Amino acid sequence: MPIPQPNLYPPFNIVRLSHVEFVATDLAASRAFYVDTLGLQVTDEDSGTIYLRGLEERGHHCVILKKGPAAAVNALSLKVYSEEDLDKAAVWFETRGNPVEWVDRPYQGRTLRVHDNFGTPLEFYFRMDRLPPIHQQYKLYHGVKPLRIDHFNCFTPDVDASVAFYNSIGFRVTEYTEDDESKKLWAAWLHRKGGVHDIAFTNGVGPRLHHTAFWVPTPLNIIDLLDLMSTTGYLKNIERGPGRHGISNAFFLYVLDPDGHRIEIYCSDYQTVDPDLEPIKWDLKDPQRQTLWGAPAPRSWFEHGSVFAGTKTDEPLLKAQPIIAP
Amino acid sequence: MPIPQPNLYPPFNIVRLSHVEFVATDLAASRAFYVDTLGLQVTDEDSGTIYLRGLEERGHHCVILKKGPAAAVNALSLKVYSEEDLDKAAVWFETRGNPVEWVDRPYQGRTLRVHDNFGTPLEFYFRMDRLPPIHQQYKLYHGVKPLRIDHFNCFTPDVDASVAFYNSIGFRVTEYTEDDESKKLWAAWLHRKGGVHDIAFTNGVGPRLHHTAFWVPTPLNIIDLLDLMSTTGYLKNIERGPGRHGISNAFFLYVLDPDGHRIEIYCSDYQTVDPDLEPIKWDLKDPQRQTLWGAPAPRSWFEHGSVFAGTKTDEPLLKAQPIIAP
Amino acid sequence: MPIPQPNLYPPFNIVRLSHVEFVATDLAASRAFYVDTLGLQVTDEDSGTIYLRGLEERGHHCVILKKGPAAAVNALSLKVYSEEDLDKAAVWFETRGNPVEWVDRPYQGRTLRVHDNFGTPLEFYFRMDRLPPIHQQYKLYHGVKPLRIDHFNCFTPDVDASVAFYNSIGFRVTEYTEDDESKKLWAAWLHRKGGVHDIAFTNGVGPRLHHTAFWVPTPLNIIDLLDLMSTTGYLKNIERGPGRHGISNAFFLYVLDPDGHRIEIYCSDYQTVDPDLEPIKWDLKDPQRQTLWGAPAPRSWFEHGSVFAGTKTDEPLLKAQPIIAP
Amino acid sequence: MPIPQPNLYPPFNIVRLSHVEFVATDLAASRAFYVDTLGLQVTDEDSGTIYLRGLEERGHHCVILKKGPAAAVNALSLKVYSEEDLDKAAVWFETRGNPVEWVDRPYQGRTLRVHDNFGTPLEFYFRMDRLPPIHQQYKLYHGVKPLRIDHFNCFTPDVDASVAFYNSIGFRVTEYTEDDESKKLWAAWLHRKGGVHDIAFTNGVGPRLHHTAFWVPTPLNIIDLLDLMSTTGYLKNIERGPGRHGISNAFFLYVLDPDGHRIEIYCSDYQTVDPDLEPIKWDLKDPQRQTLWGAPAPRSWFEHGSVFAGTKTDEPLLKAQPIIAP
Repeated sequence: MPIPQPNLYPPFNIVRLSHVEFVATDLAASRAFYVDTLGLQVTDEDSGTIYLRGLEERGHHCVILKKGPAAAVNALSLKVYSEEDLDKAAVWFETRGNPVEWVDRPYQGRTLRVHDNFGTPLEFYFRMDRLPPIHQQYKLYHGVKPLRIDHFNCFTPDVDASVAFYNSIGFRVTEYTEDDESKKLWAAWLHRKGGVHDIAFTNGVGPRLHHTAFWVPTPLNIIDLLDLMSTTGYLKNIERGPGRHGISNAFFLYVLDPDGHRIEIYCSDYQTVDPDLEPIKWDLKDPQRQTLWGAPAPRSWFEHGSVFAGTKTDEPLLKAQPIIAP
Repeated sequence: MPIPQPNLYPPFNIVRLSHVEFVATDLAASRAFYVDTLGLQVTDEDSGTIYLRGLEERGHHCVILKKGPAAAVNALSLKVYSEEDLDKAAVWFETRGNPVEWVDRPYQGRTLRVHDNFGTPLEFYFRMDRLPPIHQQYKLYHGVKPLRIDHFNCFTPDVDASVAFYNSIGFRVTEYTEDDESKKLWAAWLHRKGGVHDIAFTNGVGPRLHHTAFWVPTPLNIIDLLDLMSTTGYLKNIERGPGRHGISNAFFLYVLDPDGHRIEIYCSDYQTVDPDLEPIKWDLKDPQRQTLWGAPAPRSWFEHGSVFAGTKTDEPLLKAQPIIAP
Repeated sequence: MPIPQPNLYPPFNIVRLSHVEFVATDLAASRAFYVDTLGLQVTDEDSGTIYLRGLEERGHHCVILKKGPAAAVNALSLKVYSEEDLDKAAVWFETRGNPVEWVDRPYQGRTLRVHDNFGTPLEFYFRMDRLPPIHQQYKLYHGVKPLRIDHFNCFTPDVDASVAFYNSIGFRVTEYTEDDESKKLWAAWLHRKGGVHDIAFTNGVGPRLHHTAFWVPTPLNIIDLLDLMSTTGYLKNIERGPGRHGISNAFFLYVLDPDGHRIEIYCSDYQTVDPDLEPIKWDLKDPQRQTLWGAPAPRSWFEHGSVFAGTKTDEPLLKAQPIIAP
Repeated sequence: MPIPQPNLYPPFNIVRLSHVEFVATDLAASRAFYVDTLGLQVTDEDSGTIYLRGLEERGHHCVILKKGPAAAVNALSLKVYSEEDLDKAAVWFETRGNPVEWVDRPYQGRTLRVHDNFGTPLEFYFRMDRLPPIHQQYKLYHGVKPLRIDHFNCFTPDVDASVAFYNSIGFRVTEYTEDDESKKLWAAWLHRKGGVHDIAFTNGVGPRLHHTAFWVPTPLNIIDLLDLMSTTGYLKNIERGPGRHGISNAFFLYVLDPDGHRIEIYCSDYQTVDPDLEPIKWDLKDPQRQTLWGAPAPRSWFEHGSVFAGTKTDEPLLKAQPIIAP
């Protein structure tokens, strides 16, 4: 089955993924992880919330840590091209019977809260407070030197359905894994901003967030982070890597934050701005799609994810359709 | 004076810079330079022409070397979003009294040839032959491991006028240098594809091409190229670098091909997809804008460029307005 | 138990490990591995033998590949400080009842063949043909850019006995693993040349060669080799890594040659020339001693090794003293 | 003229260069430079003195900063192999009419102070306080991640005479520049510890210290330091580089401390332990000997150096024999 094509003239214009809001059970522990260890920069904080940005980002936040009783993800947020696109988005979701909500978010302009076809909470905005550039204040660089948020990766109970939904709002598939027997998608990577993905979907108990990725300058920064984490009490937070993904060709490392939210450190994928870029198909039986160098991922990597607050995860589906050992 | 803003809804949609056609006086010498030394991949060649691509590119060519009697640049080429955009572009140029020409270019679909406001030859196309991916055929990687073409940089007799022209077709300024006395732009960097630039303009005898840049994975690849060139007979082709630009924050090296066409090897700039990204202003008197580390560029770097075949370079203007020692 | 100290004024002066002679069953396959893939340089070859050196080495060979019917190691070779040291070595071994043999080795001066306390064949020489430097002929650098041989690592049935033997001829322990219960050494790293080791010993069925290591410039070269091997038919030859050793602090990768001889690619250990450098002790129960980042080694890494031609490996000992899961 | 060979069995056994004592006029400024910017580790400090070590060093200090009224170098220090070697050294210097002095140095055992043939103050010791390893406490790594002191480089009024002196105490020349007309040495690099040099000599007003070098992991650390220094007020302290030396093949950067003491950041030279390693000869007229990539050094680099406290620098000689433009 040919991979579905995106809507080339989508109903509203999404620029890129923007930020994630995590519920963290212990803000001090989360701060030690994200700020002192990974090297994200604090842009604001109080007793209940910490706002973070990467070193090349000028928007106010790419991560919001919100104190709460249980680990969860409050929303995946995306930036649109203009105020007008917010209104178009609201109409589009309403027309499809999807409830929309205008919410107040500090440091942001008008923000539209909706849910995707499986209940993933999405928030769209155009305007966010802009901060002065710090990418040449090199004394601030430490940890893994995270430059910017790169993508989300989500578990979904039906990858074909998720891809169809995101295609319809303009996301383009760059790479995908297909099960040659069932002809169903096993996983897919979709972008808006010109990299391999802004969001990816993998077959599993969902909707859940598999990981959030940050872009770093070179593989050596990832090696530095491994050295740092393994000698500062974070050895058990290292889950998988370092390695080269077959899919995306990126150099990667997966680590877990103190609440178990999975973070990917990522660099070296490729430019995808051409509208006629052909998606790359991978065989579900090809182990190199996950790690070009052949090392398998640990079992936890296929099973563990973060739930979205207020969204029911499709456990029954899981039971009906057991996860194939990938 | 505030930097002019781009046309957010431009008359036609340009995806990115695409390729350059150089006239080369000795194809074997150029091949030794671009293929054996830099590491670009040959996609086709005969006695008169060589087509090259970078390691992550799937379009047929990013450089065309055409045998000819004198070094020159035949055209700067750009990819548009759809066939329809080609027709819109033709109308737009014609409406402004700018002659348009539909030309045949091997491995490309319909191609529109026009000239910008100062006579720079531009060619627009949508469709180019797509080739299988080679970015994971690592045995092909050598030289500086060039991944893709990144940008053009041009001398222009009037940067403000060039910026106004490219703004009108949707290019956005990311960084610029302004002369605080005259309030005129000294140089500007403009993008379409989400990096710091697809094209830049510098005050000088123009229109001429200052350089064409290729993106490489890390600064270490640039060090490798320096080691290689300095021990294989290309010592005199190394013009400037390695260094970190203040503007763009990129790590750079400038080398000259056998005909004197300047090539920049470039990595590490930043993502610019946000439509509200504020341009960064640099002072003409700040030496760090050129090299963050303070080392000056050689005189040749400010004066030497490649002429466009068939385009008159504005020598008189040069005499009237001497180049400020930058 | 304090780690035994070396003989500070040893009976003869060993400069460093020098080279290994492998029996290879298919020279063409071995050449493709060592030369085309790893990047070692051929210094001489005929139908039965290939001589190799690293890119900064000026001695004629660091690896000899000898065609033969079954994979084996013919000898581990070491360079001494002078011709006089060869004679002192001969006397020292003879005095201890260890048979000595003067053998002819192409491209070498007088060569003394002996066996260590467990039967490992050792060859000592002072003079080897010196070749012109090639370390600045950067066009020769490819593969993993191997600069020089770094060390041998051997299985031994009794690490304490092996350390005592090599201490007596001047090797100094830099790091070691001790079993806190039995107070026996589990593994030890010993040097002559000022790095972490020229030779190391690990508890196991021995004597056998566990691996031979080559020094490379940076961890990025190791990543390059992984990308290359995993896309040129050598995926199954990647055994372990990349990673950071706790012991030695080196960045490593283990690969297997076509005959199963294990090669370590290694960089970033530390200088050990001080005669009062304290050995670092590791606990057998500390998983970070093997991989600082916590990833376990595969089972094959603990069990597989290369036999020495003509030397009986101590299988019975193995059965009497089962290998502790490390 | 063949380069003189070292004394293979020198009168006393020097292990390596060990440390330098700088007179600093403003300890706070020096601390900001060496500790906060370069990343050396403080091992002790009070109002008059700061002791520093590199990240892999276990000896107490490789740099001593001593508050004083005028920038100077108090001594270059070297470690010998045993207490006995100290006594042998004392005898050797006394026998040659060179006054010897036993001095007290904190954190060191018996220390012998002498002067070389041109008056350079040298101090020899065997025992220094040993500190626990910190090379795997990765949270301490910052700045350029300096691992260890690597070498001294000195101006001398007569390179041949300096080389003859250091040859006689066991230093071996690895590379040298000879003036083909006068047949005199222009510069020479000599080692004890198995790298390209522990000490080098260059023709110039001397004796003065040209620079002290520190070893860092990779060229990327040097790029990081350039980014840091150029954005934290140290732009003018960057004197030369980054580049690749022809001689030594090392990747380098030269920076000046707040008192003008020159520091080289250095990596990637080669192993020189073989006693029969042939010295590499460079032509005085070959510009690649200084920078393989062809960029010239600034004039200051040939002229500026640090005086040794209490030692008369040979100004008259300079006038008689003008420095050749190198």
